[in-house]
Amino acid sequence: MTPRTPIHAIYPGSFDPVTNGHLDLIARGSRIFDSLIVAVLRNIEKHPLFTVPERVEMLREAVQPWPNVEVDVFDGLLVGYARRRHAQVILRGIRAISDYEYELQMALMNRRLEPTLETIFMMPAEKYTYLSSKVVREVAQLGGSVAGLVPPIVEERLRAKVT
Amino acid sequence: MTPRTPIHAIYPGSFDPVTNGHLDLIARGSRIFDSLIVAVLRNIEKHPLFTVPERVEMLREAVQPWPNVEVDVFDGLLVGYARRRHAQVILRGIRAISDYEYELQMALMNRRLEPTLETIFMMPAEKYTYLSSKVVREVAQLGGSVAGLVPPIVEERLRAKVT
Amino acid sequence: MTPRTPIHAIYPGSFDPVTNGHLDLIARGSRIFDSLIVAVLRNIEKHPLFTVPERVEMLREAVQPWPNVEVDVFDGLLVGYARRRHAQVILRGIRAISDYEYELQMALMNRRLEPTLETIFMMPAEKYTYLSSKVVREVAQLGGSVAGLVPPIVEERLRAKVT
Amino acid sequence: MTPRTPIHAIYPGSFDPVTNGHLDLIARGSRIFDSLIVAVLRNIEKHPLFTVPERVEMLREAVQPWPNVEVDVFDGLLVGYARRRHAQVILRGIRAISDYEYELQMALMNRRLEPTLETIFMMPAEKYTYLSSKVVREVAQLGGSVAGLVPPIVEERLRAKVT
Amino acid sequence: MTPRTPIHAIYPGSFDPVTNGHLDLIARGSRIFDSLIVAVLRNIEKHPLFTVPERVEMLREAVQPWPNVEVDVFDGLLVGYARRRHAQVILRGIRAISDYEYELQMALMNRRLEPTLETIFMMPAEKYTYLSSKVVREVAQLGGSVAGLVPPIVEERLRAKVT
Amino acid sequence: MTPRTPIHAIYPGSFDPVTNGHLDLIARGSRIFDSLIVAVLRNIEKHPLFTVPERVEMLREAVQPWPNVEVDVFDGLLVGYARRRHAQVILRGIRAISDYEYELQMALMNRRLEPTLETIFMMPAEKYTYLSSKVVREVAQLGGSVAGLVPPIVEERLRAKVT
Repeated sequence: MTPRTPIHAIYPGSFDPVTNGHLDLIARGSRIFDSLIVAVLRNIEKHPLFTVPERVEMLREAVQPWPNVEVDVFDGLLVGYARRRHAQVILRGIRAISDYEYELQMALMNRRLEPTLETIFMMPAEKYTYLSSKVVREVAQLGGSVAGLVPPIVEERLRAKVT
Repeated sequence: MTPRTPIHAIYPGSFDPVTNGHLDLIARGSRIFDSLIVAVLRNIEKHPLFTVPERVEMLREAVQPWPNVEVDVFDGLLVGYARRRHAQVILRGIRAISDYEYELQMALMNRRLEPTLETIFMMPAEKYTYLSSKVVREVAQLGGSVAGLVPPIVEERLRAKVT
Repeated sequence: MTPRTPIHAIYPGSFDPVTNGHLDLIARGSRIFDSLIVAVLRNIEKHPLFTVPERVEMLREAVQPWPNVEVDVFDGLLVGYARRRHAQVILRGIRAISDYEYELQMALMNRRLEPTLETIFMMPAEKYTYLSSKVVREVAQLGGSVAGLVPPIVEERLRAKVT
Repeated sequence: MTPRTPIHAIYPGSFDPVTNGHLDLIARGSRIFDSLIVAVLRNIEKHPLFTVPERVEMLREAVQPWPNVEVDVFDGLLVGYARRRHAQVILRGIRAISDYEYELQMALMNRRLEPTLETIFMMPAEKYTYLSSKVVREVAQLGGSVAGLVPPIVEERLRAKVT
Repeated sequence: MTPRTPIHAIYPGSFDPVTNGHLDLIARGSRIFDSLIVAVLRNIEKHPLFTVPERVEMLREAVQPWPNVEVDVFDGLLVGYARRRHAQVILRGIRAISDYEYELQMALMNRRLEPTLETIFMMPAEKYTYLSSKVVREVAQLGGSVAGLVPPIVEERLRAKVT
Repeated sequence: MTPRTPIHAIYPGSFDPVTNGHLDLIARGSRIFDSLIVAVLRNIEKHPLFTVPERVEMLREAVQPWPNVEVDVFDGLLVGYARRRHAQVILRGIRAISDYEYELQMALMNRRLEPTLETIFMMPAEKYTYLSSKVVREVAQLGGSVAGLVPPIVEERLRAKVT
């Protein structure tokens, strides 16, 4: 077999904040692709809990175990960002059904805008099936514990943020 | 970046017969993975239209455009077959919702049986969204045309089979 | 406005037996279309409860209130039957989600086989949301009452059949 | 067969802006119904991209090919508008599953408010399965091309709007 | 059988306003559990139609037929409120699919926060399948009749509110 | 509060064989209801792996930890059996979406046949989300390990059965 072009993947999201479900998916993606860029979308949330630099800082600490994973920020069209980064793959997690619909809609639109860019779906561990950044924010803001749902640095920052 | 282990993927199914939706997915997978094995599951259908050797022959002809794609047959557990072939990835297509549920169930069970084996989902082109081997068999058996839904060799074999 | 071509619709199914949910839909369709053919598909069920002539007889009695509704039998491809009957519309009911997926698959395949034939979906009354011929057969065969779920003639025939 | 009452249908929506998926459905509806009113709902969007007069103007240009299609504006309850316009049918498109739920909820509520008003569902071509006004707005605002997704007049107005 | 601990259930929601679908579920729950607390969540809606005291007053009038049903208000985490009230069960209604996803997500998160607290799902009568407080508010604000969808006191208050 | 009528629940199924997902649900139900009957439906599976007496024997061993849980067999309509056993509640597990549709259909039909009988849904732990008797049978018959998916007695019997 001839040597193959390395495959670069992008895992886009708002990561406000990163959860253990995201990290589970990052770990899985890092084993399949040559490199994986975790790309924080600027401005997607109207009233974010964390600023983009805070989110990036927490992500950078959380992805240290995987040397081929990088954290970056983008705005504008995802397909334009993918082109600039020479990525061939968008990585997305799928869990619940509502996800699924929206994910397919986005993937088909992105494929139309850039036919050579493939979206690939992977599943997080089932214990994270119902975990989302939104649920984490709500529980934390009501004073509940999110231990085991987010990495330690996020737990700590959430505590600082909501008190 | 250090050179990476090649990623070998398996695309399992009954392929009775292969459709253009399957081939669309095979083309997509062949661009992402170092090698792709299209693996025909023996005995999954109670009353198949084509024998396993017939299905393999049609597949071999249809996948000729992609040099890193191989056609094979397996029986028993998919995870055992994947281990024997040193594959790290199961490739599956996702289209409609009923798919989705069954696909997740299989993927989680396979992950439990072999935690290092990842299932990866890709989408066929939307024009194949509602295409399946079952629909092809039904239309052909009722005398309808399946041109554009299957590769030429399958069209020809279906004609011979149902007359 | 110039006079318009009359619109002829076909409501296909196995009707084994017809239920009040089917009749609800027939009533709705008869108000929208110039004519409506209730078309019993021969041979769709492996082990039918009623023969095709029995199903037709029960349907004919049940659709008497609507003069523009006719009962017929067909086999082979639905699109071929529609062409022979000069119908421009396939009428289908939609209720639960599993329905929905299968219905869209069939509708898209039929559109591909005959692009001028449109499938149109209407909703039965919500009290019939979870009613199907299969559920009626199961309840009747276990000795339960199906009064209110099927027209009187079906109730009577079911009683004769299962005792 | 006695001459039948003409069937008038309403296709309601916000159309901000009209897409090729909408036009595909309008073309289909115009062949089934005697007349079809494309009815722009005033005020449904909190922060619309186009004003209601702009949307109407673009629609009027786009529906020129179909002489039995009219563009209008309404506010208040849809069932009241349908009564005033002597329409017997509401036409709606169905594509993805989330649609489906919401569409059924609206249809059942409208039926409850006006039992003689039927909602009828038709499918756009599958190439428009994942197309919506919202996706068009987002892509255009991020500088992506929407050629092939909307009629030429909308493409032109979007360009003027977002630069 | 030894005497069993009484089972106390909580039925949480925003109830803005209570509908006949809610009351149908309350009636069902009151027959299964020793006591049932209808718990109005403070502040869940950004722009509520009724204030929390108004909602409580309407609920109190509407639940008079069931002596083991109580109306209360809570804020903060539901699991904390359940602990303070010594409830072992959260009661939730399930109807449409979108419900279902969100309900499971909440139930799993609540179970994680308080493993001994069980969420139990019951179905309202199918005639309320597509009824929600949001739909009631919209219809009332557009001048439509909500008779039969809400208890008389809510109908009366809605009339006062929207005129 | 006056002493309340004890609530008796039935958990019906084919249990071919019982899985740890079933046992998880039985444990949850036993804490809510005064008594819980695990009721094996005779003849539901066309080609069962275990006979009904074998299934009952495995269930009896597996439910020993819960003194208020009984194992029984029934045939005919579930609502007739519930009446004979003076049960007011049917307990069902919900996991994936396909479940959900079928479960609601059955629950509404049972409610129609016996309006005082309520169906109540509970969720198994998410680690059993994708576990079913069918998947267990398939994995065991292909020689895979089902340790952790079924109680020890089932694991042992499966081994004896498939060798």
